Formats: sequence, C-alpha cells, structure tokens
Amino acid sequence: MTLDKLFTPDSIAVVGASRKEGKTGHEIFENLLHDFEGEVTPVNPKAEEIEGVKAKDEIPEGTELIVISVPGKIVPQVMEDAADKNVEAAIVISAGFSEVGEENLERQVVEKAEEADIDLLGPNVLGLINTENSMNASFASKMPEAGNISFMSQSGAFCTAILDYSKAEHIGFRHFVSLGNKSILNEVDFLRKWREDETDAIISYTEGIENGREFMEEAEKTSREKPIVMVKSGRTDKGGDAASSHTGSIAGSYQAYQAAFRKAGIIEAESNRELLDYGRAFSYQEVPEGGKIAIITNAGGPGVITTDEISQKGLELAEFSDEIKKKLEEEMPDESTPHNPLDVIGDAGHTRYRKALDIILEDEEVDAAIVVLTPQANTEIEKTAKTISKANEKFDKPIFASFMGEEDVQKGIDILEENHVPDFQDPVDAVKTLKAMNQYREFLETEKTFRDIEYDEKKAERAVRDYAGYEDGHELLEAYGFNLPLTKVEDAPHPAQEAASKVGYPCVLKIDSPDISHKTEIDGVKTGIENREDLKENFLQIVDNVHHEKPGSKINGIIIQEQLDGLEVALGMKRDPQFGPTILIGLGGIYIEALHDISFGIAPISEEEAEQMIEELESSDLFEGVRGEESHIEPVKDAIIRLGELAMNHEEISEIDINPLIVKGDTGYIGDIEMEFE
Amino acid sequence: MTLDKLFTPDSIAVVGASRKEGKTGHEIFENLLHDFEGEVTPVNPKAEEIEGVKAKDEIPEGTELIVISVPGKIVPQVMEDAADKNVEAAIVISAGFSEVGEENLERQVVEKAEEADIDLLGPNVLGLINTENSMNASFASKMPEAGNISFMSQSGAFCTAILDYSKAEHIGFRHFVSLGNKSILNEVDFLRKWREDETDAIISYTEGIENGREFMEEAEKTSREKPIVMVKSGRTDKGGDAASSHTGSIAGSYQAYQAAFRKAGIIEAESNRELLDYGRAFSYQEVPEGGKIAIITNAGGPGVITTDEISQKGLELAEFSDEIKKKLEEEMPDESTPHNPLDVIGDAGHTRYRKALDIILEDEEVDAAIVVLTPQANTEIEKTAKTISKANEKFDKPIFASFMGEEDVQKGIDILEENHVPDFQDPVDAVKTLKAMNQYREFLETEKTFRDIEYDEKKAERAVRDYAGYEDGHELLEAYGFNLPLTKVEDAPHPAQEAASKVGYPCVLKIDSPDISHKTEIDGVKTGIENREDLKENFLQIVDNVHHEKPGSKINGIIIQEQLDGLEVALGMKRDPQFGPTILIGLGGIYIEALHDISFGIAPISEEEAEQMIEELESSDLFEGVRGEESHIEPVKDAIIRLGELAMNHEEISEIDINPLIVKGDTGYIGDIEMEFE
Repeated sequence: MTLDKLFTPDSIAVVGASRKEGKTGHEIFENLLHDFEGEVTPVNPKAEEIEGVKAKDEIPEGTELIVISVPGKIVPQVMEDAADKNVEAAIVISAGFSEVGEENLERQVVEKAEEADIDLLGPNVLGLINTENSMNASFASKMPEAGNISFMSQSGAFCTAILDYSKAEHIGFRHFVSLGNKSILNEVDFLRKWREDETDAIISYTEGIENGREFMEEAEKTSREKPIVMVKSGRTDKGGDAASSHTGSIAGSYQAYQAAFRKAGIIEAESNRELLDYGRAFSYQEVPEGGKIAIITNAGGPGVITTDEISQKGLELAEFSDEIKKKLEEEMPDESTPHNPLDVIGDAGHTRYRKALDIILEDEEVDAAIVVLTPQANTEIEKTAKTISKANEKFDKPIFASFMGEEDVQKGIDILEENHVPDFQDPVDAVKTLKAMNQYREFLETEKTFRDIEYDEKKAERAVRDYAGYEDGHELLEAYGFNLPLTKVEDAPHPAQEAASKVGYPCVLKIDSPDISHKTEIDGVKTGIENREDLKENFLQIVDNVHHEKPGSKINGIIIQEQLDGLEVALGMKRDPQFGPTILIGLGGIYIEALHDISFGIAPISEEEAEQMIEELESSDLFEGVRGEESHIEPVKDAIIRLGELAMNHEEISEIDINPLIVKGDTGYIGDIEMEFE
Repeated sequence: MTLDKLFTPDSIAVVGASRKEGKTGHEIFENLLHDFEGEVTPVNPKAEEIEGVKAKDEIPEGTELIVISVPGKIVPQVMEDAADKNVEAAIVISAGFSEVGEENLERQVVEKAEEADIDLLGPNVLGLINTENSMNASFASKMPEAGNISFMSQSGAFCTAILDYSKAEHIGFRHFVSLGNKSILNEVDFLRKWREDETDAIISYTEGIENGREFMEEAEKTSREKPIVMVKSGRTDKGGDAASSHTGSIAGSYQAYQAAFRKAGIIEAESNRELLDYGRAFSYQEVPEGGKIAIITNAGGPGVITTDEISQKGLELAEFSDEIKKKLEEEMPDESTPHNPLDVIGDAGHTRYRKALDIILEDEEVDAAIVVLTPQANTEIEKTAKTISKANEKFDKPIFASFMGEEDVQKGIDILEENHVPDFQDPVDAVKTLKAMNQYREFLETEKTFRDIEYDEKKAERAVRDYAGYEDGHELLEAYGFNLPLTKVEDAPHPAQEAASKVGYPCVLKIDSPDISHKTEIDGVKTGIENREDLKENFLQIVDNVHHEKPGSKINGIIIQEQLDGLEVALGMKRDPQFGPTILIGLGGIYIEALHDISFGIAPISEEEAEQMIEELESSDLFEGVRGEESHIEPVKDAIIRLGELAMNHEEISEIDINPLIVKGDTGYIGDIEMEFE
C-alpha cells in the first residue's frame, strides 16, 4: 500500500455531495473545489449541479479517490459501484458503523474494499488533508498552513481543535488524517507512508492500538528516521473505560503501552498542548546534541522558575566556559553576572539579546537556549523577536522563546511563529519540550544489543509439557540458566528433616501443589526454620493450612529450601493482549505491593532496555548498591533478559511470578516461582 | 500598620517626576495623573510643570504618599524631607540598593522610614496598583481590570507579565504589589491587610521569605479566611542558586517551604500560568464541596484525556445517580450514553449543553463540572459560552470550560472570561485547578488537634545540659516518653558478654563515643550477634575500627542492645533557618537513602499533620500494613509528635536522627539515635 491515490489522486468524486450549505456533503465538496488542483466531481443523483459543477448520477470512470458522505447503510452499495469503476482509494466520512454497534455493516464495507483492493480510510472520519496538493478532503472548514508535520487522530474532534490551534500559531502540516474506526487503514499504514516521505515529525492521538506488536515494530523503524509523538488516552482505569465506551477500542494495559513506546522510541505527550509543542519543536528545530540548556532572560524571576524546571526534568543548566564568561562580562552591563541563567537586565533592547545569543550559542557547553522576555519599559518586543529568529537561522542548536504576556507581546510572538521559533506562554513548557527532544536523542543514540541465550530446549519443553508443579517450574528455569537454591521436596516430616540437614538451617518450607498458585494466601510458606523440631511443627502446620483453606488440593509434597539473604527483587511476566509478553521488575517481597514501584518491558528485551527498566525504578539506587554495597544490576539484567527469552519461546505460559529473586553478590537465585498457563 | 495611606491616600507626590517621556519618573506621574482621583503633585526642582501640572521643589505639606523615582543615592535625602513633611507612606521605585550590594544605603533609608513611622514599600519595585481608587502608582503602562484578586510579587518583571496576561483574559485585580527588596514591608504585612479587606483570593510570587515562622502563622490565619496561592521559585538547588544571585534571598530548604505551605494552607503553583489559573478560579468560583467531577463534552477524545487527568490527580469521576441518568436518557440523543464523561455528541448546539448542565449540576453526586467544547460543524460557540455563563450564575458549584482551539473559539472564550467562567486551553489544566481547590477545601475542613505531651522536664534538661553521648540521648528520649530497647553499655568484652546474657541473643553492638556522630560510617554498628564468642570478636572489631578510622576518639563504651524486628522507620529533626524545627519521616535503614521518599512537617505537629506526613509518603502502604499486617500509623504518629515537642523545647539541639525507629505492634522503639548541637 503506497497510499498514493489516497493522498495524491488526479481525480476525486464526492459521493453524497450536497447543494445545501452546512451539510457535510456540501462542505467536503466545497473544500475540495476551493483549493484542490485536480478534477473534482459531485456525485448526487438528485442534483443537477453543485456550486456550478455538473453533478453525476454515479462515480465517473477513471476516478481515483472517492470521498463518501451518504447514510451509513448505503455505503456498501457505493463501494460496489467504486469497485466497478476501479476506484483506488476511498475516504468514508459516513458514521453509523461499529462505533454504534453496527459491526456487520462495517464488515460488508471492508469486504468490498478488500476484494477490489481499495485503500479505505474510515468509516466515521473527519477526512484527510494534504497540503502538498492543497487537497482538503474533509469537512473541516480550515486548511492548515503547509509544513512538514504529519498528524493522525482517532478522534475527529481532536483534529478540529488541533487545526484551530495550529492555524492561529502558524504551525505547518503536511498531512492531516482522521482515522475513525480504522476498519482497514490504521496507524501502521501511515507510519510506513510517512517514514518514506518528507514528513519530519509525526504526531498522533490514539485511544487504542489493535495490532500492538506490528505497530511497535513499524513505529521503531519509523522512529529511527523521524520522531513520533503520541497522546495515548485512556491511561487510567477510568480513562480506559471512557475510551472503550466511546470507540469500542480494547483498553490494553497502559504499562504495556508505555513499555512499547519506549521500545519503539515514541515520545509520549499527555495533552493536546504537549502534542503540538513537541510536534512543532521537532519539525522546526534540530534535535539537540545534549541536555545542557542556557537561559537568557530580561527578568530574574522567570529565570529562576525555568532553572527549577530544568533540574526537575533531569536536564542540566549549562555551565558557561571561562572564555564565554569573559566575553559576556565585556558585552553585558555591570549589573549582569556572566552566569546561567543570564540576566540581560530589564532595560535590555534587542541588541543586548543579540549579543548574548551570539556569545552563548557559540559555546560548546550549550546544547540549546531558552530566551525569556517580559514586557518592560525599554523592551523592544518585535525587534527582539526578529533577533531571535535570525539567531535561529544562524545556529543549529534549538532555540525556544517565551515571550511572557499576551497583548503586549503578541506581535513578537507572531514574528517568532512565522519564523518557526517555538514560543511558549510559560517557559516551563519550553523545558518540557526540550526534555522530550532529549529523550528522542537518547533513543537514537541507544543501540539495542540482544544477548544470545542458550537454553536446554528439550528440558524446557518437557517441563512445560508435563507441568505438574514446583519441580517442573524449577526445571524450566534451570533449562534457561537461572540459579536455584538448594531444594528438596518431601512428603513427610521425617524425610523432610533429613533433607533439611543437607540444605542447612535456617531453611524455608513451602507447599508444592498444582492446585495452589498463590502459596502465601493460604499461609503455605514458612521462613526462618531453625531446627528439626521447628521444621516438624511448621511442616504439619502447612499441611493443615491446605486442608483448611483449600481442601481437596493435591499435595505433591513440602519443599525444603536453602534460605538465602540478599536483595529481594520481584520479576514477572504477563502476556498483554496487544503487545505480547511483558516483563516487569520491582523490589521484591511486600515492597512490590507497598511501593507501586514497577517498570515494564516487552520481550525480547535488549541489554539496554533491561538497564532502562532498572533505572526507571524509584528504588533503582538499591539495585545499584547503597552504602558501598556492590551493584546488583548485572544479575538482575540477566534474569530480565532470560525471562523475556523464556516468554517468547513458550506461548502457553500466560503468567510467571518470580518473587523474590534473591540477589546475592553477582548471582540471582529463584526464591519462589508461580506460573499460570493459558 | 493598616497600610491605609499606601493604598488609599488623598494626596500623592511623585518625587523625581520627569518631563521626558519613557523615563520611569514620567511614566509613574502620567499613570497617576490619568486615573487617580486624589491630588497628584510632581516634585522636580528642575521642571516648571509636567503634563500641565505645576512642579514643586520639595514634597508639599500634607502629602500622604510619596512615590520615589530618583537615583538611589538621593533616596535617603528624600526620606528626610518626607519625615519633615509627615508623609505616611512611601513607594521607593529606585534601584541600586541591597540587590547590587549597597546594603548600607538601604539601611539608611530604612532607618529614616522607621524613625518617622513611614510605611515603606521597596526599594527596587515596579510600584503598587489599587483598582478600588484607580491608583496606578507604578511604571507599568497598564491598569488591570477591577476585581478581587490581590497579587504580590518579589519580581517586578513577573508583575508586568501577569498584568499582560490578565488584561487579555479579563482577570480582575484588587491590589497589585511589587515587593522588591522588602526592606520594611513584606509578605506578612500584605497578608494581614488582605485578610481583613474584600480581597477574595491572594496570589503571590516569592523567591524567599526571611521571617519564616511569622509568615507561616500569619498565612495560616489568612488561609482560614481566603485562599493564598504562591509560586515559590528556587525549589531546586540550581534554582536556589539562581534566586540567591538574583535577589540575595537566603535559599531555605524547599522541603521546609512545602511543609510550611501545607501547615499554613497555602496552595502552591509551579508556574505563572498555574498562579493565574488558580487565582481566577478561587476568585470567581465557590470552593467545591468535594472532588467528584462531571465532564460534559461534544467529543469523546478530550473527555477521555480529562478523565485520565482526574484519576491521576486523585480526584473522582462523579457517578451519576439513577434519576439523573434517566433524565439524561430522555433529553440526550440516542448515540449518547448517560455516563460520565457525558458525550453530548458532535452535533450538539447550545440547547443540548444547557440541558446537560441543568440535569447534571442538580445531581448531589456532582461537586464540579468541566465543559469541553471542540469547534465542529454545528457547534454554537458563542451561544454555548452564554449558556455556560448562565449555568455558572445559577449554580453554586464550580464550572470550568475548555473551548479547545484558538481562532474559531475565541469569541466564545471572551464571553466566558467576561462572565468569570475560567476557560482553559487544555482541559487537563481545569483538572489541575480543581485539584488545587480541593486541596484548599481539605485544609479548611481539617482541624488541628495538638496533643498534650507530658514530659519529665528535669530529666530532659539534665540530659541536654550534660550531654556526653548515647546514654544521655537515651535519657532525653525517655523523658519524652519514647520506648527504648533493653540496653547496656560496657567497656570490656567480658562484662559485655554478661550484659548480653541479660539483653538476650541475637543482639546489637554499637560504639558509644561523643566524638562519633555517624556510627555506621566507621563501621561502628554490628547486628545479629548470635553468641558470646561472636560478641567478643565484634566488640574488639568495633574498638579497632575506631582506632583506625577516628583515632583519638573518646570511647564511652560499647552499647549492647536488644535486637528488635519490625517496620524500620527513619525519623529526624533539623532546624531550618527560616521555619525552625522541621521533622522528617521516611522508611528506615538504607531505604531512606535509596528511595528518596521523605516527608516533612514543621513543629509543633498536630495529629492531622502527622497523619498527612505519613500519607504523603510513597511507601505509606507499608505504614498502614500490607498483607493483613496491623497498622503502624499510631506509634509512628506518636513518635513524630513527641519529637516535634522535644525540638520545640530544646533549641540548642540542631539535629536529631532516629534511624531506625523500630515499630513492633503498637509500639515504636528507638533503634538508634544520633544528635548534634548548635
């Protein structure tokens, strides 16, 4: 699918074009007639002519693209006509399909399109806009300015809002696509398209992806070429419910989305404002070479707020080099100290801003600049805007502006926007945007190294096939090279005492039963067993607990296990309906529940992703080792990667819960494992 | 200080009024001449007349307020003249004082003002604006619209930016004060003033407070009457440096600020946008009775994003009652489901919005509403704005709007703003604002109950006076009712073994030395001592460590302590230069360093504040007890409150570090204590 005829057809027919102003079928036709350079035909059997163009009864031969705006029920019929006429692409504006429970009707349309090999967008869309050939095939009254951002959205209303903002702020778009019900064409198709064309930033609003792994892979390939920014709504449970009731999307786990976004290098935005801010920054500016930011301001206060935000976002306030400091001392007034944030003082005119920009942007220690202006008595608003615009042309580093205010500074803001210098009402938003750009740079710089995990295939397959409990679980993990503590399983107190003397005291007792997957819930685990007597008592207690809490459970025996001390880590796997096997990591034991500090990755997991997963944890310092302890990162990384590999190879396992993984020195031991099958 | 003559003088003299347009002294005079209804006299010995008003050589008799805009060095002389003429208030616009290192000059001005009992604002300010009497005693070219927000700012440039925003958004102000160097009048004076007048919301930008405790107390009294919203910049280390270099403010600890803000009920804003958003919401709307929010939208997508934000901010999505659902079913189109967020569907005109608002706002389950509008084909932007404005008059509940877009929706936004319905470019900001309002409501609803801590005064004073190490520390804590583990101190291995047999194995050994305040740093603590032999070995090891790591340290002995298991909590006290004794709490042991999860309170600490401190922790679940464990909250609360009391009573102690406090059942035991003195 090149989607050529969808974006650049020679001829278009509007099926359902209407004479009546205000009707969707009229607006679309008028929009196309107005600007599009190719041929546009209205199709409406009841009309003679529309806006001076002779109307046709049916789709004319040779039509490449049709835009359909007729009642939903008639759409299958239109598609039949389209197939007869060898139409190559169709935009179905009409609603009344799966979004209102009419799955059947939608299926009919899809089948006809697929049979005739028609690229179909929709149904239930606002339309599609291409500024390259001035084609506004939508019922949005506005055409955005031309530019190189491409946008797709699952919500049509989001499109109109974004159009309105971007028009006012001179933000240029290349393509503008309303995705609607995504019955055939979806995010993946447009990612492929835009990867190859001159788009330089892709922005998107989505409520749910239905082909997660394919999406993730295509997105990653695209991200290597150009940035993708996405709003994923329905992040919370309540939001997910709202999204489902609105579009019928399956709300996958948001954690899986986040992990997929990280893997694919997608930058997440949390609001429409962020989406536009990030989009225009990526489109207008170079990706910075690092996170060292300079602030130039004519007022101290906003400089301080901006500095705070830089620190909070994990970026750096650039340290000016001595040479630069000397130059600043020469050029700036006495009240100004040559430090970052640089206060050019309240009476600064545009010349002083120019000097500051020229000096600071030459500094190798500076990767990007934020220029703050507050409207004061001597401030030259428009001239300063021009000065910043010139610096923006001169230097490859991103320059952002924050002209603080509304009325007084508006003319300056207009100049900045026309010259593609992103302006922010609040300088903290400029920092957020630089953070997003740096996140993208880090993605580009991070290679993915996949480790070759050798495992005992036969042993693993046997263990999975015949899975009957704890021992098989252990064998499976052993096949994948995990380290296991010294373990015995016995079915009576006396042999258990014998076993314990080999395992050593203190030891751990646990129930082994195929019917009990959450051992602690029935008090089936006892730790710190000190001696023979203690062992017997606890052995019988566990058996008793099973009889009371889960009567009738098969008891394979009681596990006697070496008790290990070390960092307790929780490691798990869950299969996400969209993205497949998801690996999670956090502090083990009760901390996993108490701290809600968990990070996710999608298998297979590279060395670098495993490291990122650990780094993302609030408790990552514990993994790195505090108070001079040695680092636990390598064994945890190793376990993450191995578990990912295991999850990829055995699809019948739906859930694995290793809690704790006990890390002692450079080795991680399986403290406990629970598994569930499909 | 009633500050009456500063805000409502009958006569004003502008000292340094200038004929030359653009000069500060000219702008101020012109601003006053333009609108102020009282008498305004230009003072300038070199001018005959300014703007048609005869200029005077010196301050006229009977002048109540002077505004000074002469070179800094002449200001003391002007103040002398002012004192002679019985001037009652002065605004010193002039710069060149402590902000550039001229502390001496500033001191002269302050002394003269104090001698003559003149209310002095500044120096180094933009000025002061009072919309009640149309007095613009500043060099800002704009006068804000009249309203009931009062604003003060340490940054003059911040004032001009806020003025510009608020003018464009029709935000009404009562008083507008640039605080400058705060040589005499500061935040406290204006909080007192505004507490008594018709101001209904106070907003403020500050970089640092210099009289923390007084400020906190006055702010709390004021918050009980009306909300205070503050931007505190210099929150991070880098930001603090920038603030110090810019104003010379002492950067206190931001954690202490946050604790003081919570205590005083101050709502924190993190940017100028938030400051204005919160300010106008508090000024225009009632404080909501709860956190249950309804969303009314003509587009699903923004409804989902708003829902996500509500969940993330810890607010609730209102559940509509059955009765309301029935009414919605009757009045809304078929495609709309009667759930929150309520989608009134893309073709909604203003009537449908009106019906939805009328039905939903009647619901007792709804505390506030956010109305989202995206500009679609049938959207009636202006009429819907009027409809929302009417609902806003009719109902006592806060109603916020988000008209998404810029050009198309602008007329609607203007109508909303004129009718004091806060509109937000992005609906997520409406949620943030409702969060701030709910935080204020919670403050108003939370009483402060102070516990009467009985303590052994004599014992405590003795321990502090003669403090020589561990035993005195224990005695001090004992005097305050803390629980101590069984402890002995011995100076040789043999008696230590005897002591251990009383304390019981396993036990803990620690160095007791007045010269060693961080015992773990020299490996001076050994836990899990199992037997006599083990004890001897570790005893000698500790002594050896002291000799190697801190040779010459006095050794009181080695502490032999009962080893307790339980939740390990870190509890500490530090004296903040601004706010006095600060109490901190977090998970104990290495977790305090590894998780950076600490919350702060300022002593004395009420029952409710102690609870909030625990709730604020990420790890609060651990305190509440996970997996059916009993709650540890009461003993931790008790310890927080007792430590607060101790800190209040013994100012000579600069730092206390209880780590861990071991909580076992309903009792907290002091695992270890370290103290430092002033």
